[in-house]
Amino acid sequence: MTVCIVGLGLMGGSFALGLRESGFASSLIGVESSPTHAEKALALGLVDKILPLEAALAQSQLVLLATPVDHLVQLAPRVLDLIRPDQVVFDAGSTKHPVVQSIKNHPLRKQFIATHPMAGTEFSGPEAALSGLFEGKCVVLCDTDQSSSEACALVTAAYQALGMRMILMESNAHDLHVAYVSHISHIASFSLALTVLEKEKEEQRIFDLAGGGFSSTVRLAKSNPATWTPIFEQNSQHVLEVLDAFIANTIQFRNMLENKDLQGLYTLMEQANAIKRILS
Amino acid sequence: MTVCIVGLGLMGGSFALGLRESGFASSLIGVESSPTHAEKALALGLVDKILPLEAALAQSQLVLLATPVDHLVQLAPRVLDLIRPDQVVFDAGSTKHPVVQSIKNHPLRKQFIATHPMAGTEFSGPEAALSGLFEGKCVVLCDTDQSSSEACALVTAAYQALGMRMILMESNAHDLHVAYVSHISHIASFSLALTVLEKEKEEQRIFDLAGGGFSSTVRLAKSNPATWTPIFEQNSQHVLEVLDAFIANTIQFRNMLENKDLQGLYTLMEQANAIKRILS
Repeated sequence: MTVCIVGLGLMGGSFALGLRESGFASSLIGVESSPTHAEKALALGLVDKILPLEAALAQSQLVLLATPVDHLVQLAPRVLDLIRPDQVVFDAGSTKHPVVQSIKNHPLRKQFIATHPMAGTEFSGPEAALSGLFEGKCVVLCDTDQSSSEACALVTAAYQALGMRMILMESNAHDLHVAYVSHISHIASFSLALTVLEKEKEEQRIFDLAGGGFSSTVRLAKSNPATWTPIFEQNSQHVLEVLDAFIANTIQFRNMLENKDLQGLYTLMEQANAIKRILS
Repeated sequence: MTVCIVGLGLMGGSFALGLRESGFASSLIGVESSPTHAEKALALGLVDKILPLEAALAQSQLVLLATPVDHLVQLAPRVLDLIRPDQVVFDAGSTKHPVVQSIKNHPLRKQFIATHPMAGTEFSGPEAALSGLFEGKCVVLCDTDQSSSEACALVTAAYQALGMRMILMESNAHDLHVAYVSHISHIASFSLALTVLEKEKEEQRIFDLAGGGFSSTVRLAKSNPATWTPIFEQNSQHVLEVLDAFIANTIQFRNMLENKDLQGLYTLMEQANAIKRILS
């Protein structure tokens, strides 16, 4: 099968590697607005060729949109305008309600599946692509009642080829749950990095002491602002709600520490430990 | 050489494994107040025998104190009271000024080295012990001008056997720098876990969506409250200072999001990205 991937960054590039290695894609066509990324993607062998959008769509059976989420809301209806009734399109953005809204009245709506693979790294660009990135991870498929069973079957087959576990969710519920779990984690990590860079002026000390847990907690702070600014913007309502709870919890911790309420601190940490039960 | 390890948790147990495997310790004696931990440590072969403190000290050349830091300030002077002039004692606590203060006027002060190996995991107890935990990591040796050159040489040899990189720091400076880098990371992670557990009532959703970066950011929230309560208490002044900066940065992020200041958010994340340069 010929698969077209629009956007050859971490996600698009990793899809390309995984779909080729699994044998799902026999031919891969890339669409990439950055000449540098296009060149790297070809040099790395992520795709067989790079074409303009219209030409790439004309030659493909399955189309993946892997651009930042602010582009997706323009791109999804445009791609549906250009495809034939036998083609299927899916996206991999971290917010789902806006892209679903952008095509809700499109005559080819049923040929689109809104998806969010819960996998990634803190790196970006084609050179960040990893084969096996998606293996064993979970992908959320949203509002599949709005998509045809043929489209669902094809996208499901692609994710099965990548070794992913699928779950179904309504797009609004998805955006709420990812704010609560994933988006807040990124903000906590960005804020931690800002704080440590501000307070610890001796960079060598950061490097020396990072083994004490800082490295893993701050990993997400390396993430690409061009990816994350539109995600936070599109999901601001849910993100603000969980962010306010995070600030309140951090202030509670701070006040207990200032008041030497050691039993209170112990209890808070014991409550936090409950996360072990879920993520063992 | 016979090494005595007081406290057979994650740290003490990992020292035991590493010192035995490297050939540095020919015999290992444990001292452990918890009968369950003592039994597990023996079953796991971490030490050759468990003895009461006095008997263990009498048979050892090098003594490691690997208890929670609130115990250390009682234990360090007591151990110095009990040892002979040819024995060397070191500790592995996450704060250094309090333990150094607890022995500053002791006649055998020179036989003590205050150290902090910057390595660990989120797990605790003897079953959390890992051989190779310290390999390639950094250990801080504090106030070594207060210790004899013989004691420094012996402890340095032990850390070299574990494959650690050594740096020297004044104990007050150590406590400041670890607050800025390590202790704040733990609080950010504890607070993140509390928030996600509070907001996300569907535990299956946490499990499903954890691949989006939550797992690594929240790893430290599994840490033992019995270890961390006294660390935060002993280092509260430095921790409160960096915690206030963390809260201010998080509130700034929140307000930019509420005010749709996308350029501001982008710039904050770009500044946070600078951590890449240090932790590549």
